Amino acid sequence: MKGKNKTKQERGIFLQKAIAKTKINRERLARSIEELSIFGRNENNGLDRTTFTQAELQARDWLKGELHKLHLQVRLDQAANIWATREGTDKALPSITFGSHIDTVPNGGKYDGALGVLIGLEVMKVLEEYNIPTRHRFELVSFSAEEPNPFGLSTFGSRAITGKLKQEDILDVKDADGTLLTEAFNKAGGDSANFEACVRDSDEISAYLEVHIEQGKRLLNKSIPIGIVTAITGIYREKVTVTGEANHAGTTLMKDRKDALAAASEMVLALEDICRKYPEDEVVGTVGKLDILPNSANIIPAQVEFMLEIRGKSPQEIKEVLSQWNRRIEEMNRPVKVQRKIILDQLPAPMDQQIIQEMEEQATQLNYSSLQLGSMAGHDATHMASITKSGMLFVPSIEGKSHCPEEESLIEDIEKAANVLLHTLLALDKRLDSL
Amino acid sequence: MKGKNKTKQERGIFLQKAIAKTKINRERLARSIEELSIFGRNENNGLDRTTFTQAELQARDWLKGELHKLHLQVRLDQAANIWATREGTDKALPSITFGSHIDTVPNGGKYDGALGVLIGLEVMKVLEEYNIPTRHRFELVSFSAEEPNPFGLSTFGSRAITGKLKQEDILDVKDADGTLLTEAFNKAGGDSANFEACVRDSDEISAYLEVHIEQGKRLLNKSIPIGIVTAITGIYREKVTVTGEANHAGTTLMKDRKDALAAASEMVLALEDICRKYPEDEVVGTVGKLDILPNSANIIPAQVEFMLEIRGKSPQEIKEVLSQWNRRIEEMNRPVKVQRKIILDQLPAPMDQQIIQEMEEQATQLNYSSLQLGSMAGHDATHMASITKSGMLFVPSIEGKSHCPEEESLIEDIEKAANVLLHTLLALDKRLDSL
Repeated sequence: MKGKNKTKQERGIFLQKAIAKTKINRERLARSIEELSIFGRNENNGLDRTTFTQAELQARDWLKGELHKLHLQVRLDQAANIWATREGTDKALPSITFGSHIDTVPNGGKYDGALGVLIGLEVMKVLEEYNIPTRHRFELVSFSAEEPNPFGLSTFGSRAITGKLKQEDILDVKDADGTLLTEAFNKAGGDSANFEACVRDSDEISAYLEVHIEQGKRLLNKSIPIGIVTAITGIYREKVTVTGEANHAGTTLMKDRKDALAAASEMVLALEDICRKYPEDEVVGTVGKLDILPNSANIIPAQVEFMLEIRGKSPQEIKEVLSQWNRRIEEMNRPVKVQRKIILDQLPAPMDQQIIQEMEEQATQLNYSSLQLGSMAGHDATHMASITKSGMLFVPSIEGKSHCPEEESLIEDIEKAANVLLHTLLALDKRLDSL
Repeated sequence: MKGKNKTKQERGIFLQKAIAKTKINRERLARSIEELSIFGRNENNGLDRTTFTQAELQARDWLKGELHKLHLQVRLDQAANIWATREGTDKALPSITFGSHIDTVPNGGKYDGALGVLIGLEVMKVLEEYNIPTRHRFELVSFSAEEPNPFGLSTFGSRAITGKLKQEDILDVKDADGTLLTEAFNKAGGDSANFEACVRDSDEISAYLEVHIEQGKRLLNKSIPIGIVTAITGIYREKVTVTGEANHAGTTLMKDRKDALAAASEMVLALEDICRKYPEDEVVGTVGKLDILPNSANIIPAQVEFMLEIRGKSPQEIKEVLSQWNRRIEEMNRPVKVQRKIILDQLPAPMDQQIIQEMEEQATQLNYSSLQLGSMAGHDATHMASITKSGMLFVPSIEGKSHCPEEESLIEDIEKAANVLLHTLLALDKRLDSL
């Protein structure tokens, strides 16, 4: 029954059919998720696994151990990103790369980041188990420091390898306790002295794929298991300072007031209104941080400083919201001064059309319904998209929750995303870099 | 020319005419204001004369010295209020009392409080200088701790003598450094062991009059020098807690949000709108203090806690604003929970009609224009009104400023208020408690 008596062509067809039926091992994947979730677990059942902490270093060791068991070639780059390589049949071809990150926010969940790495690990296990050859070198990557961290540098690892962080950007970076970032990532296996040597060239990687939890409710609300990301949101942030005049809350008549909080309230509601009415769902605006001076019950607020954030899948969307908001501010007609400073203007990252189509095709073949949607959170794929064709799969998040102990995804959905990833990787392996 | 050859009746008429022409001494009053303003002056030219501090104790000593020079009978009560008494011709009559306070807010001005005491002192000087007899005993009072202070007890002195503070209310009160309030006012000359003995009976005082700066712009805007207070505002405060849900500022669509700040912004603007539209100018509403959780740029605010304040000259006004606001909150239709707790519900204190009329009459006689208006700030007179007929005169505040080094009033306006006080006191002396 092993195709012994078949022709080479017949054996090829048989192999292709066998590969087409190959599935990831749900139970094994579920066990990995549980095993990795031990590191950093706190009394709330949340994970405290901030980058380069003791708990995260332990998680890294566990991951390296798993990769070694598979006899993959494991290396750390200068930014302490972990890479595991499985050679392809054509050594001249670039890599096909997939992964995510295993650090968490404080009191985070066990899926954000880790899921993409563990599904990648499971893909490697399946390839090894069934001895499936690929033309391209397959690389699993676990990026350093994706989440906001005490060093103030999120997506550190993916920014480093895409050349967006220079030696001088990292040299004097310290956390609140005075620990140097360089010291911290050297301890994790990095090499700050040769930091920029970690940069990967466009030629070296043919595609980057990442699985992540959705962290929203769009898939859940539509009962669709597979999310295919069309673009990763751009993030625009401004610090807005509204200056009025402090005055006695009793003796100052309403008409004589220069109330910075009332003006800021109008600005907060204008942003909400514009984004609510915007025809595209995946445009959001938030004021999450706001501080008042002097902040006393019987004094009219003199100054309010707040952070305006707008996200959208295209620069156009962000620009439109911003210009509508500008108009509202101009029309506001309040006796306050408004000063604005752009803090962040990260462009949206469109995902690659070929990868999007391949993911959809593979989902259909596997009989899973899928939905194309934007990623409203930033990811390592944002930066990878600047050097290679990139794509992301989203797994539904229960109640849309993330960055908290209640963060959860169903293993049935995780399994489906893993299968789509596996088969998309194999399909891309055939189609990319063909002569 | 001294009426030597006149009949007793003629001499009486002559005296009355002379008294009618008596005026306070503007230069002397200006000097007093400057002299007292030395105590606590800081590098901003503001006054740091918080109650019971070294600077305030020095100011008290200066004041006591001035009173002793006038040969008035000076005493401190158990709450360390300073009283100076000038005997009347009819010792059986109650007192006519006037004054204010000499403590300041941190970095305050030289008029808030001090002006009322210094005008009272000037009145005493004029009575002595011209040897003007009064039927009633005249009492000048300088109340302890009128301003907000580190012990958290404003209008301390007037609340004490009107029986609103009991022994148990003051026993364990400490400032942030652990200093006992009792210790602090004993040092100033008080007697905490017999605290409640300071209470004055209704029978003992026929009227209480206070001059104060307006701390607003109503007089200034109308170029009217004399403000006659009709009522002292009631102050209503609620702590409002708005609870939504923290969520990712990117992945949570606008329609899925439970944004506590957007809800609170609507509540802030509703209060402003209601008070702006309220037909009575002297009804104001303020949100001066507001705090957000978790207060992070990329997290939708989970909780906002703010202090709602409403002031009005009648309980009815406050009630109407509050009920309109309640209706707006009910109609708001946002997915947030609103919890409310009443923190303060101080009733308005109407001033005495007879005193109001007398003040108006005296201003007219002196050829000064006057305006009846509400006091939107609390004063010692709020509490005095609970035991005796009370009245207040307001002096215009330059630019409406107070509680800051820029606080200022013109000496011309101060002089006018002092003359109205002097003649109102003399008129009341004749009319009150007549057989």
